[in-house]
Amino acid sequence: MEELNIEYVLDELKRLIADKNFKRLKSVLAETNVMDLAEIFDDLSPDESIILLRLLDKDRAAEVFSRLSVQSRKDVVSGIHFNFLNQIIEEMSFDDKIDFFEEMPANLVKSLIAEAPQEERKLINQFLQYPDSSAGSLMTIEYVALKKHLTVKQSLEKIKSDGVDKETIYTCYVLDETRHLEGILSLRRIVLSDDDSVIGDIMSTDIISVDTSDDQEYVAEAFKKYDLMSAPVVDGEKRMVGIITIDDIMDVVERENTEDFQKMAAIAPSDDEYLDASVLKLAGRRIVWLLILMISATFSGSIITRYSDVLSMAGVLTVFMPLLMDSGGNAGSQSSTLVIRGMALGEIELKNWFAVFWKELRVGFVAGAALAVVNFGRMVLLTVINGAKYADYTMGVMITVSVTLMLSIVLAKLIGGLLPIVAKFARLDPAIMAGPLITTIIDAISLIIYFTIANALIF
Amino acid sequence: MEELNIEYVLDELKRLIADKNFKRLKSVLAETNVMDLAEIFDDLSPDESIILLRLLDKDRAAEVFSRLSVQSRKDVVSGIHFNFLNQIIEEMSFDDKIDFFEEMPANLVKSLIAEAPQEERKLINQFLQYPDSSAGSLMTIEYVALKKHLTVKQSLEKIKSDGVDKETIYTCYVLDETRHLEGILSLRRIVLSDDDSVIGDIMSTDIISVDTSDDQEYVAEAFKKYDLMSAPVVDGEKRMVGIITIDDIMDVVERENTEDFQKMAAIAPSDDEYLDASVLKLAGRRIVWLLILMISATFSGSIITRYSDVLSMAGVLTVFMPLLMDSGGNAGSQSSTLVIRGMALGEIELKNWFAVFWKELRVGFVAGAALAVVNFGRMVLLTVINGAKYADYTMGVMITVSVTLMLSIVLAKLIGGLLPIVAKFARLDPAIMAGPLITTIIDAISLIIYFTIANALIF
Repeated sequence: MEELNIEYVLDELKRLIADKNFKRLKSVLAETNVMDLAEIFDDLSPDESIILLRLLDKDRAAEVFSRLSVQSRKDVVSGIHFNFLNQIIEEMSFDDKIDFFEEMPANLVKSLIAEAPQEERKLINQFLQYPDSSAGSLMTIEYVALKKHLTVKQSLEKIKSDGVDKETIYTCYVLDETRHLEGILSLRRIVLSDDDSVIGDIMSTDIISVDTSDDQEYVAEAFKKYDLMSAPVVDGEKRMVGIITIDDIMDVVERENTEDFQKMAAIAPSDDEYLDASVLKLAGRRIVWLLILMISATFSGSIITRYSDVLSMAGVLTVFMPLLMDSGGNAGSQSSTLVIRGMALGEIELKNWFAVFWKELRVGFVAGAALAVVNFGRMVLLTVINGAKYADYTMGVMITVSVTLMLSIVLAKLIGGLLPIVAKFARLDPAIMAGPLITTIIDAISLIIYFTIANALIF
Repeated sequence: MEELNIEYVLDELKRLIADKNFKRLKSVLAETNVMDLAEIFDDLSPDESIILLRLLDKDRAAEVFSRLSVQSRKDVVSGIHFNFLNQIIEEMSFDDKIDFFEEMPANLVKSLIAEAPQEERKLINQFLQYPDSSAGSLMTIEYVALKKHLTVKQSLEKIKSDGVDKETIYTCYVLDETRHLEGILSLRRIVLSDDDSVIGDIMSTDIISVDTSDDQEYVAEAFKKYDLMSAPVVDGEKRMVGIITIDDIMDVVERENTEDFQKMAAIAPSDDEYLDASVLKLAGRRIVWLLILMISATFSGSIITRYSDVLSMAGVLTVFMPLLMDSGGNAGSQSSTLVIRGMALGEIELKNWFAVFWKELRVGFVAGAALAVVNFGRMVLLTVINGAKYADYTMGVMITVSVTLMLSIVLAKLIGGLLPIVAKFARLDPAIMAGPLITTIIDAISLIIYFTIANALIF
């Protein structure tokens, strides 16, 4: 792919604005893709952005504006003339409009909605009420509706006259008088059929639809499972109210993945871009889990207190605590990550719990044995090379460390593999059962094993 | 969405197969969506699957077969008659065919390719040579090609006659005599234009194309950035060779995310589904990093050895090691996860390193202070409640633990935030600088801070 040199165009635009060379500006703007323009506008000052928006055609201005980062959009809005803003918004597609209203201050939104035609005003208010991550909030109303009795030729004419403003014309929806969905058919099917064919005969009645209240994650799964490009959305009375298209689903998938990454690192999930988020907001999203985990870690401390006699008699045992705790934590994180991801992708379900248990048990033995052998070998080697320095590496200590390593890795694998499934069973989000929490649990268990074995073997 | 009751259909099919009720089987099969059938087939025995494949129309059989899990497909292939397999493969779309050949044993693939027409044989061999995650390996050759001089009416007729076998007809490609791409246009544009318009006049020359050698991650970024539904793929001489469609890109995005999850949990990345992978393979993918991290953790052990005097004089310090190590590790994981994800989504770039530094420094102070205050309060409270039991919680110990907590969290945030950027700068994958590695590094640093402060404050 040939990349446009964004930096170069950015500099040129800034220079042309400074020179007030509007004629040249117009032609540079006309030559540049709206996506690239949106990226460039993000690096311009709000005043510069507004000058350029005024020089663009209304529909391209709306497209660029819809694609700015949230921060840039807010900056532009605060400097723009209300009437001009209203003109841009009129040109925006319905779902972009809704997204925009959702992120702007309530009183501005109120004034803007007041400018819309009454029919649209009602619709906008209805859409703003759909819960944040529901199918209703994702959908757009701009779809092609056909009737069963039309011929292919009549349908193509209808598409020709209605289609310009629609989000997609590639899937058409066949509705009855009460807006119930009777069938769907692709533009492909229409174009490849004879002119005289009747829609009712060539439409498909095998319809995958979603409800306005369905969660976006569920909708994304349906898209992936059925390889959909778009899906109809129906209300409580099964009347068609809108469509969701695959580009919105791509965004949902990325957002859901981002949330999972965050939860798995013990961060309260959020859509905010890292660089845009304030320090206090970022800190707030992290502190709660850090506190919970810190308090939980005091449990490991109390185990150490309980076995302080053992430690004071064989101080060398302290030296291996980081190694044991880290290895157990890492082994557990590996298992929980694979299982959480497998569940997110629908590869692992509740009913597979025994398969996971059995697999992790065996993987734990293989990995645990490998680590224990390497560790034992390393300790023996050290005493051979420098017996004086490592005089307190007695056979009892070496066996204690290696056996603990082995056992804690097996347990870490089992706990890491099963806790996400338990969470799902308890209707919690499996993603919280990831590295940080697993590590804290395994730490305590490893220490108990460690001191118990030490007690038996060394004294 | 109304879910099909898969379990119910599965039971019915099994019963009908046992009863040899082929007539009823055919009608159940005809009523069920191919995606649902694929899911059902995954739970049938290979023999049952083969019986049902024979009862399906050839093209639906090919569709179901393409959508089976890799394991089911292998099972079916080993039991199926070669000629029947060949018939199914003939019906498969070109890119599904390539995917299938890539996963099957070499000698079977050789026999199957030998059955294909010569022209296709050449193409298949060419496609099998594209590197695994390149645009070439993702693309399909089934696209609609038009000529500049055609009218809309002529084009629609051409699409009508050629379109049936094409992966998508929604984007058409305008090629010159030497197959160089002159323009692209959507079926939408064609349908919405007058019959007499000439393709050359209505096509767009603003073309986003990718090279056969471009990496799939790069291609996915282009799709996301430009909201593409499909993209043309060109060879070294800029001749068009195929297209990539958005459904393949959805899979790429999910695979790339899965790889990132795995790398961030210190697992060698792999496409294998968890339940299908063998124990030895799973263990192999985890052991290398576990060993590396275990050996690295011995560095923390050597720090403890160096300060063993401090520990033997104030054994209570050992009690807080888990708390300090876990909190530091968690704080670092949070920062590295946010930055790695931000880089994967293109929100954070190398040039933002200072913004990340400055943000993490402040977040670190806020989070560190919060944890230190809570921890200090907790320790004071314990001595007030039970002075005898917590006699060794001296002011020196309490300050040492709290100040170490504060400092190690600030450092963890900085290191966690900056190491992924350093990795990217060094052309390494930022995802390796995640929780497990960061934790090991922070452990050592926390212990050094801990013992240094203890040395100064307590003795």
